[in-house]
Amino acid sequence: MSKRGYAASKKLLTGLIGAPIAHSASPAMHERAAEALGLRGHYQLIEVAGADAAGLSLMLEGVRRLGFAGVNVTYPYKEAVVPLLDELAPGAAAMGAVNTVVVKDGRLIGHNTDTTGFARAVAPLLAPAGNAVAVIGAGGVGKAIAFALASLKVSDIRIFDSEPARAATLVSLLAPLGGARIAANVEDALSGATGLVNGTPVGMLPNRGMPVAAALLHEKLWVADAVYSPLITPLLAAAQAKGAQIMTGRELAIYQAADAFELFTGLAASTEVMGKAFDEVMAARSAAYHAA
Amino acid sequence: MSKRGYAASKKLLTGLIGAPIAHSASPAMHERAAEALGLRGHYQLIEVAGADAAGLSLMLEGVRRLGFAGVNVTYPYKEAVVPLLDELAPGAAAMGAVNTVVVKDGRLIGHNTDTTGFARAVAPLLAPAGNAVAVIGAGGVGKAIAFALASLKVSDIRIFDSEPARAATLVSLLAPLGGARIAANVEDALSGATGLVNGTPVGMLPNRGMPVAAALLHEKLWVADAVYSPLITPLLAAAQAKGAQIMTGRELAIYQAADAFELFTGLAASTEVMGKAFDEVMAARSAAYHAA
Repeated sequence: MSKRGYAASKKLLTGLIGAPIAHSASPAMHERAAEALGLRGHYQLIEVAGADAAGLSLMLEGVRRLGFAGVNVTYPYKEAVVPLLDELAPGAAAMGAVNTVVVKDGRLIGHNTDTTGFARAVAPLLAPAGNAVAVIGAGGVGKAIAFALASLKVSDIRIFDSEPARAATLVSLLAPLGGARIAANVEDALSGATGLVNGTPVGMLPNRGMPVAAALLHEKLWVADAVYSPLITPLLAAAQAKGAQIMTGRELAIYQAADAFELFTGLAASTEVMGKAFDEVMAARSAAYHAA
Repeated sequence: MSKRGYAASKKLLTGLIGAPIAHSASPAMHERAAEALGLRGHYQLIEVAGADAAGLSLMLEGVRRLGFAGVNVTYPYKEAVVPLLDELAPGAAAMGAVNTVVVKDGRLIGHNTDTTGFARAVAPLLAPAGNAVAVIGAGGVGKAIAFALASLKVSDIRIFDSEPARAATLVSLLAPLGGARIAANVEDALSGATGLVNGTPVGMLPNRGMPVAAALLHEKLWVADAVYSPLITPLLAAAQAKGAQIMTGRELAIYQAADAFELFTGLAASTEVMGKAFDEVMAARSAAYHAA
């Protein structure tokens, strides 16, 4: 027999474990990317709050045994899944955080495409040498961003967090990769910096704050935000007003998904298709928000 | 907010646990039925050979925890899953065999739609009263058929199996439902019968045998076959030649799927849509068979 059953060879089952995730753009991005490659994709939202290690372990056993190509993992489980996997990619091991679990020959392998995705997105903003980047926020997102910058050989990374202990922990994690330093305050982080990344939730709707005073922004600084709701955060609006180059959180959202898709399938995802899907979800969400 | 995420409310994840299942028509039937109702369905083939109770239990925990609406279960696990479920529908409990596991409020509930599906399919062949039906084969398929007949109040059921002990076991299982008797041989089973059902694999390609001699068939007997490959088995061809009314295995295949879909979703599946999907899979399989 030369054929397999009904599209059996062209189906792709993946998903996302976390909470809350009902409004995630990932199903749209992954399913459209699959469709563009002639695959029938199903990206399952597995929303479970308060899972303990035993519960996570049973979910991951299901992922291993039920034919999933893999799953993404998000808040609050990115660290909790680490000890439950069979193997970690080097970047994920260094960070101690996983957002993508791939099933390969029955083994569960952890990756972090927040880091690889942000690295792909931010690379065009970097100069060939002499980059000095301020990272505001040393939580999960800030950590992924700092590791991405370190992977791009940015040697001058300044970490600021309103909880100095969190910044210290991240700096110590980065030591083996070339290092970073704690910034005493936002001004210190930005002193002589060529780039700035917001890794805090400040500016995410309904919040309308800024993680950095507008007076510290200038046209020679590129400014990136991990927040994508709204796309142009107050920080990015202020940076634009100063003539600075900006990058929205849309890029991180798309590239982390594209890298995960490639790990799941071995096929390159169209970031154009994923971006269009992302935009449609944001537009629908915005319409629903304003209609509420 | 009045809207949910990307089609989040319109997705349906189901599947099939068994082996071998690569050529199953179920993905096509279930996904097309979902599509006809405006749902995006994904029916996952979970082909695992040699799973023990621990392995089955981990698969079912995955089904429970990863957002499946449910799964079908087929050879060789229909009996093995029974003790692993939280609850059984009465029919499945009586048979000790489950082909459909529904996830409801986090509980795993076992049903048998081979029985309910065959009952739906065969009901039009029965007379208002006075039915006497010969069932050939007391294995898994014969058992489902006999329980279906019992559920339709056919009180004269004659079971023949080349292994008399299997027929005896089935007869004892049927005792609480109104009873059945062991037939000493095929002739005995058919003596005065109004209907005949083949529940053995005899006649399934590449086999071309008949479970009953053509001389025993006649125009007043309806004849049903659980085998659907080929659609017209040698038994059904012989019955047609005698002018008997026949029912192919296609009907059981479709109605067991339709009943499972309804249990998974609470929505009635179109048996027309499922039948068309089944026919397309059979046509493709036949083309591949002849091209091989």
